[in-house]
Amino acid sequence: MNPDDYRIAPKSKVDLSGWNAADHADIQDKELAKAILKENRKVIIDLQERLYAENAQSILVCFQAMDTGGKDGCIENVFKGVNPSGCRVRSFKVPNSVETSHDFLWRYHQHTPRTGIIQVFNRSHYEDVLVVRVKGLVPKSVWEKRYEQINHFEEVLEDRGTRILKFYLHISKDEQKRRIESRLEDPAKHWKYSEADLKEREYWDDYQKAFEAVLERCSTKTAPWYVVPANHKWYRDVVVSTVIRQTLEEMDPQFPKGSVDVSQVTVI
Amino acid sequence: MNPDDYRIAPKSKVDLSGWNAADHADIQDKELAKAILKENRKVIIDLQERLYAENAQSILVCFQAMDTGGKDGCIENVFKGVNPSGCRVRSFKVPNSVETSHDFLWRYHQHTPRTGIIQVFNRSHYEDVLVVRVKGLVPKSVWEKRYEQINHFEEVLEDRGTRILKFYLHISKDEQKRRIESRLEDPAKHWKYSEADLKEREYWDDYQKAFEAVLERCSTKTAPWYVVPANHKWYRDVVVSTVIRQTLEEMDPQFPKGSVDVSQVTVI
Repeated sequence: MNPDDYRIAPKSKVDLSGWNAADHADIQDKELAKAILKENRKVIIDLQERLYAENAQSILVCFQAMDTGGKDGCIENVFKGVNPSGCRVRSFKVPNSVETSHDFLWRYHQHTPRTGIIQVFNRSHYEDVLVVRVKGLVPKSVWEKRYEQINHFEEVLEDRGTRILKFYLHISKDEQKRRIESRLEDPAKHWKYSEADLKEREYWDDYQKAFEAVLERCSTKTAPWYVVPANHKWYRDVVVSTVIRQTLEEMDPQFPKGSVDVSQVTVI
Repeated sequence: MNPDDYRIAPKSKVDLSGWNAADHADIQDKELAKAILKENRKVIIDLQERLYAENAQSILVCFQAMDTGGKDGCIENVFKGVNPSGCRVRSFKVPNSVETSHDFLWRYHQHTPRTGIIQVFNRSHYEDVLVVRVKGLVPKSVWEKRYEQINHFEEVLEDRGTRILKFYLHISKDEQKRRIESRLEDPAKHWKYSEADLKEREYWDDYQKAFEAVLERCSTKTAPWYVVPANHKWYRDVVVSTVIRQTLEEMDPQFPKGSVDVSQVTVI
């Protein structure tokens, strides 16, 4: 498994129908996947502590997907065990009236990470060129400009030491059908089902097109998008955790030097 | 007095030494100035109420100046009497440790106005290319990019209906001397004096150069900078209040239509 296979090169053309959502590369089974995830998580937990102590860099991880795409599950599986003092998850729902009275980036900017923090966005500023575009919530002349505005916004964050990773969890339309059906069948999953799920499903093709535009226009060298094959949850988690692990390894956070020569200290 | 005389055309060259800080155009005396200010304020108060009721547009007014330039006094004189529910003033001081742990725009973005509001920034995001540049608080490679980043940021605000006005209150170096001296002489003004005033004064030329860069690079057609002659406080207030009045008149906020046919309502 090489996560670069799922990384979108800047300004490349993307046709999601050509991306196999059921791909699992050379990971043959769930057991192997779980072992890799466990190992990745161990490294992430260790490096997150260093990131926090170093207090100079930060990470912003954005998750987007079709309904039932597995954002919640993936976030839970990848970040379980990380010290919550240094790792925050923010879910963005339908904006409230104060939020819509501001520019579209306002509510997201407040939750970008300070130095030392891993911030996870469950849905993100990309909603404003996804659901907003598909449902025509603002005119095309408005959302059309947002791709560049998002790139500029992310550049400002990067200049303050924030590494940005963006994951599109890619499931097939058949897989979505199975997942919605399982929500209907399993009483423990009924709470996850809403009539909006079926309604949104009618817009499948429009959403795919909107995702393609995001991937084509907002994947940059330093803040890349990944199309993560997500039909197999275990493979999805391997890909996402590997990217995060490798990014943290690249960032190579260091414990700061203490201000005291500890060899001279005696505790009496 | 034509406020357009003080408006910086986009991408024009600016040499502040050629701008007369003592200019008062055809306003011959303080009395006339006070009468104009009073009339402007009346219109601003009226239009601010409509802006608030309409709840579709907003204004962001940024004030920058050399020390003793008169930001506080000007804000007080121009906005006195405006309903404080719809007009907010935010002063930005030295950033705290949470603020410096985020990108430079983070703390300002939180206070941009929602629809219906007039937001005043006493100092603003321009501090990050003024004091930060003059004192070398970040490397040149960082502040150099900020001019464009600020323009992009303001464009996002404008796209949500925010009109942005930026005033540089221009005093001469002699006038600053007089004002610092008067702070030293008048016991009621001692609290305004700090040793930093004299220290900052040593950087006068560097600040002028930094202001020129701001004026040259961040005055846009829709979010213009004004160089306001500010040696005469009364003239300064006339210029600023006239620009704000004219902008509000252009924005032409309207009371929204009620949802009820009031001719059919009887109060029993």
